[in-house]
Amino acid sequence: MKVLWLFAHPEQRSLNASLRDDGIRALEELGHETRLSDLYAMGWNPVVDRSDYRRGSHTGAGADTDADERFLVARHSKRAYEAGELSDDIRAEQEKLLWADTVVLQFPLWWHGMPAILKGWFDRVLVKGFAYGIPDPQAPGRSLRYGDGGLAGRRAMVLVTAGATAAGFGPRGVNGDINELLFPVQHGAFWYMGMSVVPPFIVTSADRVSEVGYVEYRELAGRLRERLLAIPTAEPIPFRRQNSGDYDDDLVLRDTIAPGQSGLHVHTVR
Amino acid sequence: MKVLWLFAHPEQRSLNASLRDDGIRALEELGHETRLSDLYAMGWNPVVDRSDYRRGSHTGAGADTDADERFLVARHSKRAYEAGELSDDIRAEQEKLLWADTVVLQFPLWWHGMPAILKGWFDRVLVKGFAYGIPDPQAPGRSLRYGDGGLAGRRAMVLVTAGATAAGFGPRGVNGDINELLFPVQHGAFWYMGMSVVPPFIVTSADRVSEVGYVEYRELAGRLRERLLAIPTAEPIPFRRQNSGDYDDDLVLRDTIAPGQSGLHVHTVR
Repeated sequence: MKVLWLFAHPEQRSLNASLRDDGIRALEELGHETRLSDLYAMGWNPVVDRSDYRRGSHTGAGADTDADERFLVARHSKRAYEAGELSDDIRAEQEKLLWADTVVLQFPLWWHGMPAILKGWFDRVLVKGFAYGIPDPQAPGRSLRYGDGGLAGRRAMVLVTAGATAAGFGPRGVNGDINELLFPVQHGAFWYMGMSVVPPFIVTSADRVSEVGYVEYRELAGRLRERLLAIPTAEPIPFRRQNSGDYDDDLVLRDTIAPGQSGLHVHTVR
Repeated sequence: MKVLWLFAHPEQRSLNASLRDDGIRALEELGHETRLSDLYAMGWNPVVDRSDYRRGSHTGAGADTDADERFLVARHSKRAYEAGELSDDIRAEQEKLLWADTVVLQFPLWWHGMPAILKGWFDRVLVKGFAYGIPDPQAPGRSLRYGDGGLAGRRAMVLVTAGATAAGFGPRGVNGDINELLFPVQHGAFWYMGMSVVPPFIVTSADRVSEVGYVEYRELAGRLRERLLAIPTAEPIPFRRQNSGDYDDDLVLRDTIAPGQSGLHVHTVR
């Protein structure tokens, strides 16, 4: 594997950092290549801004020379991408993503989502034309997404730590099913771009690792090692492909598929 | 109403900015008070960092004087909150939130979630002890959350714009039901803190407003006006209260509630 490891935690002595280090070591011991984007350590800027799209160093002028022009995020980011005018830090992350065949996305769950610094990696790096908005040659009017797209063929795994218990994140737990809480990133980002997503590695009761009655760190790290090494052969989450025929021209699931059902789970083949 | 309007869009000539201006005008014309946090205009810092928790100007020493101490986000933010040592920008937002009886949260949907700058408002402002982590005097071992908590009695409404169609965000649309995509913020943040959440105002096909065949801007602004003025009397989303008896001691929905069902919708009374 060529693994891009995306990491967002502000403390290098954290459980997250230990799992990251042990995970990367396990991969490298078996000859896999890894690259790390440690967003806090990099001082990553998470805020989308028009200054990202008028780098200007390639042409001497910049793709967006008119500061008075109304800023349209998707349109201007696509134009800058195509002109090679994106900010250097964005281009570096895109290059890593194209190099990788596998992405590990590691974060502590904050307010039931990614830390802002990591959300801003998605917002800034995955611009139109690069990650989405690519026309489907087989289906006029549709673009390649949800199972097809610029990053198809790659795999992703989410590694998330959370303070609450496994029960609280279970199918009927008060916080909501963790698998559905991860739908926006797993389905709405990775699968949207065409990447296959293997089941997440979830650490619950994360503040109590190695306490009496909770999982021991060494056991946890061992389980993570196994899951990482199995990424190439694991069965991906069977999200439905947008352009497979399951969805009608309005991109709504056909009546014959999961009839009478609704909710996020209908987008997964059962 | 006393409305705190949280706004995150990088362009002041955007559809979002127009809806914000017309919405605030409608509220003020009827005598409601408003305060605006325009995160891009404020240059809001979205990144949680330990420097937020050792402000030091109150005691002369700072609550977190030991830079070598391992940084535990929840613990250190709570300690700084209780010591009055949070960064000034965080304290200013907390003060606005306590002043308000109503929050309007407005953003364009990016990667099926909030822009990073707005996610970082949640990450930084809503610290333990202020927004959560308050023991329930009636239920030993439980804290006040999901329907109870430090911000109980307040109301929130999400105002979101999205490029995709209404069908694509419908109950069986390929993007996932927009109401379930908003579950992390509506249930996992506002309801978690005790706030009631009225149904969201959702603008789909947002890039096509006022195009032929799509909604006219004036009609859209008029609908928003009605929804804003109705916030105090609207029926909130009937999320289940954690400490109402619906959930067992493991915080799992009891077998008698929505029997046999799972998915995010089980946390809403139907």
